[in-house]
Amino acid sequence: MAEQRKPFDLLNSALNNTVIVGLKGGKEFRGVMIAYDIHMNIVLEKAELLENGEVKKGLGTVLVRGDSVVYVSPS
Amino acid sequence: MAEQRKPFDLLNSALNNTVIVGLKGGKEFRGVMIAYDIHMNIVLEKAELLENGEVKKGLGTVLVRGDSVVYVSPS
Amino acid sequence: MAEQRKPFDLLNSALNNTVIVGLKGGKEFRGVMIAYDIHMNIVLEKAELLENGEVKKGLGTVLVRGDSVVYVSPS
Amino acid sequence: MAEQRKPFDLLNSALNNTVIVGLKGGKEFRGVMIAYDIHMNIVLEKAELLENGEVKKGLGTVLVRGDSVVYVSPS
Amino acid sequence: MAEQRKPFDLLNSALNNTVIVGLKGGKEFRGVMIAYDIHMNIVLEKAELLENGEVKKGLGTVLVRGDSVVYVSPS
Amino acid sequence: MAEQRKPFDLLNSALNNTVIVGLKGGKEFRGVMIAYDIHMNIVLEKAELLENGEVKKGLGTVLVRGDSVVYVSPS
Amino acid sequence: MAEQRKPFDLLNSALNNTVIVGLKGGKEFRGVMIAYDIHMNIVLEKAELLENGEVKKGLGTVLVRGDSVVYVSPS
Repeated sequence: MAEQRKPFDLLNSALNNTVIVGLKGGKEFRGVMIAYDIHMNIVLEKAELLENGEVKKGLGTVLVRGDSVVYVSPS
Repeated sequence: MAEQRKPFDLLNSALNNTVIVGLKGGKEFRGVMIAYDIHMNIVLEKAELLENGEVKKGLGTVLVRGDSVVYVSPS
Repeated sequence: MAEQRKPFDLLNSALNNTVIVGLKGGKEFRGVMIAYDIHMNIVLEKAELLENGEVKKGLGTVLVRGDSVVYVSPS
Repeated sequence: MAEQRKPFDLLNSALNNTVIVGLKGGKEFRGVMIAYDIHMNIVLEKAELLENGEVKKGLGTVLVRGDSVVYVSPS
Repeated sequence: MAEQRKPFDLLNSALNNTVIVGLKGGKEFRGVMIAYDIHMNIVLEKAELLENGEVKKGLGTVLVRGDSVVYVSPS
Repeated sequence: MAEQRKPFDLLNSALNNTVIVGLKGGKEFRGVMIAYDIHMNIVLEKAELLENGEVKKGLGTVLVRGDSVVYVSPS
Repeated sequence: MAEQRKPFDLLNSALNNTVIVGLKGGKEFRGVMIAYDIHMNIVLEKAELLENGEVKKGLGTVLVRGDSVVYVSPS
């Protein structure tokens, strides 16, 4: 069988692509992921804050602290 | 008696199968688990977000952070 | 006096028996405990989700993350 | 002055006696403490769940996870 | 300048005196502190549970888990 | 460029001055900071508890556990 | 391909510039970031507390504890 895939492979393959980052409490950020680390700290460019799937405001560049991340999904 | 089973054996045997991942706060993801690690970070493909057992939206591929996971159940 | 008992002795003696696992937030799982580890990650077979003591749904096999566990009680 | 007392001395001296264990969220367990460890994981026998000081249900033996414990009081 | 004071000096000087211990969620214990450790686990004697500054009930001796402590104040 | 400043420099320079300490949940303490450590445990003298910016009660000396601290601001 | 960027690069490049720091619970601070560390403890000068995007009050200098930080965004 092939070598086992690891969760962070998804982050690596999503670099420089648009992702949605779900936060504790239910809000989401959508933006282009330009950096991440092993704590799941994530930097998004052209970031937007979403509430209930709708754009609430634009944020430009944003560093999201890994401790607040619930999920990351390439969009 | 046989060798003792460990909780992560369940994750290993569920690889490439559909699982439900319950999150803090009560929401659930359902999808095909293609990767996990010792922190219980989990990658699902063909993922759907469920609320009260009903599909709320499709997410494609999603990385769920282990810190938010309450349970994992092969469906 | 006899050797002191340790909390995990209870888990060991409850292996392959039905237990109730209480979760943060108040829900409970009931099922046959087939595995656990030092983080109190627990695998139940024939698991049911309980709310206010009533069966809400069946889950088959479920891995409960130790971080969400409040108590474990042989039933 | 005498040797300084340590908090876990209280647990040791309360072994095999009835204690009340207060949990995050406000519920309490009352029972005979037969085991504890350095994480404050605690096993009670003849345990009862209390809400607002009233017995809600009997649980027999219960392992309470230290992470959920707020206080322990010999009753 | 004099040697710098450390927060735990306050606990040491308050040993065997009455203190108020504020908890996450807003409740308070008041009692005579007879022991503490580096995790801020604290043992009170003649302890009372306070809600909104009023005595709710007497508890005798109580071990408060450091993880639930917000503040400690000699009264 | 000058040597980089570190967050704890602010605590050091605020020693023996009045600070406001914001807590999880929204309450604040105001008092003279006489001690702190690397966990951000903080001792205030002449401490007052504030709710919505208004003095709720005086506390004399108080040890605030770092885990509950959200921010510290010299006033 | 170029060397991979890391999340803390964003903090470094934002030093001495105005940033918005989002907190658990939804409040935000806006101010000039003059210091940070690996825990994401952050010092802001000319800091303002924002609620729903509106200035609630001025705080002068404030040390924000990393544990409470959800995101940091250069404004």
